[in-house]
Amino acid sequence: MQMATIGATPNGGVNRVALSHEDKLGRDLFVGWCKEAGCSVEIDQMGNIFASRAGRNNKLLPVLAGSHLDSQPTGGKYDGALGVLAALEVIETLNDQKITTEAPIEIVSWTNEEGARFAPAMIASGVFAGEFTLDYAYSRIDKDGLTLGDELDRIGYKGKSVVGNRKYSACFELHIEQGPILEAEKKSIGIVTGVQGISWSDIILVGKETHAGPTPMKYRIDPVKSSLPILSEIYALADKYTPHARATIGYLKAEPAIRNTQPGKLVIAVDLRHPDKKTLSLMHKALIRIAEKETSNSSISGTVKEIWRSEPVNFSSTCISMIDNAAKKLGLSSMEIISGAGHDSVYISRVAPTGMIFIPCENGLSHNEMENISKEDAANGTNVLLHAILEASSMH
Amino acid sequence: MQMATIGATPNGGVNRVALSHEDKLGRDLFVGWCKEAGCSVEIDQMGNIFASRAGRNNKLLPVLAGSHLDSQPTGGKYDGALGVLAALEVIETLNDQKITTEAPIEIVSWTNEEGARFAPAMIASGVFAGEFTLDYAYSRIDKDGLTLGDELDRIGYKGKSVVGNRKYSACFELHIEQGPILEAEKKSIGIVTGVQGISWSDIILVGKETHAGPTPMKYRIDPVKSSLPILSEIYALADKYTPHARATIGYLKAEPAIRNTQPGKLVIAVDLRHPDKKTLSLMHKALIRIAEKETSNSSISGTVKEIWRSEPVNFSSTCISMIDNAAKKLGLSSMEIISGAGHDSVYISRVAPTGMIFIPCENGLSHNEMENISKEDAANGTNVLLHAILEASSMH
Repeated sequence: MQMATIGATPNGGVNRVALSHEDKLGRDLFVGWCKEAGCSVEIDQMGNIFASRAGRNNKLLPVLAGSHLDSQPTGGKYDGALGVLAALEVIETLNDQKITTEAPIEIVSWTNEEGARFAPAMIASGVFAGEFTLDYAYSRIDKDGLTLGDELDRIGYKGKSVVGNRKYSACFELHIEQGPILEAEKKSIGIVTGVQGISWSDIILVGKETHAGPTPMKYRIDPVKSSLPILSEIYALADKYTPHARATIGYLKAEPAIRNTQPGKLVIAVDLRHPDKKTLSLMHKALIRIAEKETSNSSISGTVKEIWRSEPVNFSSTCISMIDNAAKKLGLSSMEIISGAGHDSVYISRVAPTGMIFIPCENGLSHNEMENISKEDAANGTNVLLHAILEASSMH
Repeated sequence: MQMATIGATPNGGVNRVALSHEDKLGRDLFVGWCKEAGCSVEIDQMGNIFASRAGRNNKLLPVLAGSHLDSQPTGGKYDGALGVLAALEVIETLNDQKITTEAPIEIVSWTNEEGARFAPAMIASGVFAGEFTLDYAYSRIDKDGLTLGDELDRIGYKGKSVVGNRKYSACFELHIEQGPILEAEKKSIGIVTGVQGISWSDIILVGKETHAGPTPMKYRIDPVKSSLPILSEIYALADKYTPHARATIGYLKAEPAIRNTQPGKLVIAVDLRHPDKKTLSLMHKALIRIAEKETSNSSISGTVKEIWRSEPVNFSSTCISMIDNAAKKLGLSSMEIISGAGHDSVYISRVAPTGMIFIPCENGLSHNEMENISKEDAANGTNVLLHAILEASSMH
């Protein structure tokens, strides 16, 4: 709640966009707390913050836990911050209980997870895992033309340590679900087995622009009218691969977008998701077939352009079972769940065994100032994180 | 073709937007030609230009013919200019043939028909017919904040004669069809019986915004998905009232329009048209029922807001039969047609018997630099205008 006062919005949310003054204040507060908890703090060249607590055997690879402190411009208090502060809570609990783990423990706060100011999202964990180069990340610009590199410097968080030089035996991220499933299924803990793959496509339908008045219906070549069976079949595609498939039409862009002109062009923004790589690929191929089928017998030309694909991620079975063990030990109701949203853990899972813990969020709301969780769920999630870390840090 | 050199665009069109320097040059050229043809020229307070040719009995109400000289920013050569210059051609023909009509004849060029710079369209004929006040028209501003009144002054076309003080026994406007019907039906002359009524509505569908990933399909309240049967039924509505009904979805505005967010809101821009007032009203009521029906059994809320209605116009049966007579006398193929677009004649028909003549335009293209007509069609249309004027000006 103290962290949420930094960048607090009138509607109860948080605006702590990456590398803003508020982000700097949040980082300062967090670093201060880590030092109070006896951790040594290191900042890497991407501004990722690592706070270490020594173990009995510091030659062992450390266990990592954390998330991110940046937020959406009208974000909530818990998206990201929960996972960072829960990891700190774990360390404070170990301090209070005077427990020394076998392996060292680290907390991480990743820079610019949201991507709200600098695209792409998860850029710093991406550099960490080798997805992006440091130069690429530094050269990202916000809408005012400021670069990520300069802004990192400006807020004093361009560290010296090389990005990605750290190795871990296990990584955990506690996060709010950002969806309605745990609440609907009345489960306290989501054991995240992986992250959905995502395929973004534009369907481009080209007809012939005409005035809304003079041209009779029978002479029209109307991409809006032609889009209707295509859209229906896209939703049917999600039903076909239920329950894990998702199909979202985020927008339809008519050209020209003028009320009294029948558009000559329509671009349909499609987001397809599935946790299975092969199924995601099948869904994308079906999308192409749908557009072909519906335009082959008409004067409309239809093309499908995949503009981005993120393959599904399967988290480490070791980390998954540690989370499962912790939930069982604590007597908490749990279920396996697939993350529909991207997280820093997606990139981290490429370079270290990784797992995620979800807790319910009210009405599934996230990226929203009304985002909310219960104290009980927060405590349960943090306890699961504690016990998973305890198991991971004692393995050697 | 000489008029089309003023404001000529690289792609063969015309940019002679109302009250621009090009509009002034076009007006000057036209006024010069009228004076050369022996006409007396008068400009009213709205910059409408009236060029009069005396008849044998100048106590009779004159016959009016004309259109407008302003264009769209990327307009064609013929939209408007054809009707003005054809009326001048009629007078030159009468001069050449040394014919004096019984009643006087006037040519008109109406100011700002297009509305491309100053909304609304047809504002000057609207003031003439009492739809708008002069003050309202003068106070219209363009995107640079300049007023119509000041711009009229600047180009030297704010005349002294009171707008709407002139009476006519018959008014004719020759215009390109701006649609594909005459070309498709292989007819030379469209005898315009009226102008479609127009009803503009927003259908507003409100669901619940959610991320494209986390929320399973079954929990979604998606206005895009819910819009599909509504859109289908809107097009079916046009089929029901075929051949005259038109239904156009100019755009669909999703909020937020982000690819990876299932929108919480969708606004559908609907344009319904029909030449019969009662049918147009039925179509609008059906639209409300469609939205109600499709949202009553779902969690989507749907509202239909009519934002503008323009009732259908029926042209004067006397003028229609004069045009019909002229086409028959000349042995030209013709058909009755309804204008889908608005014209100055819509307003003028409120204060004087009015009729319109359409000629085909290539591929139905208009408001487009590629707008084109054949010389033969131009000559045919002008001959029909001549003979309609001859009949009208001899009636007394």
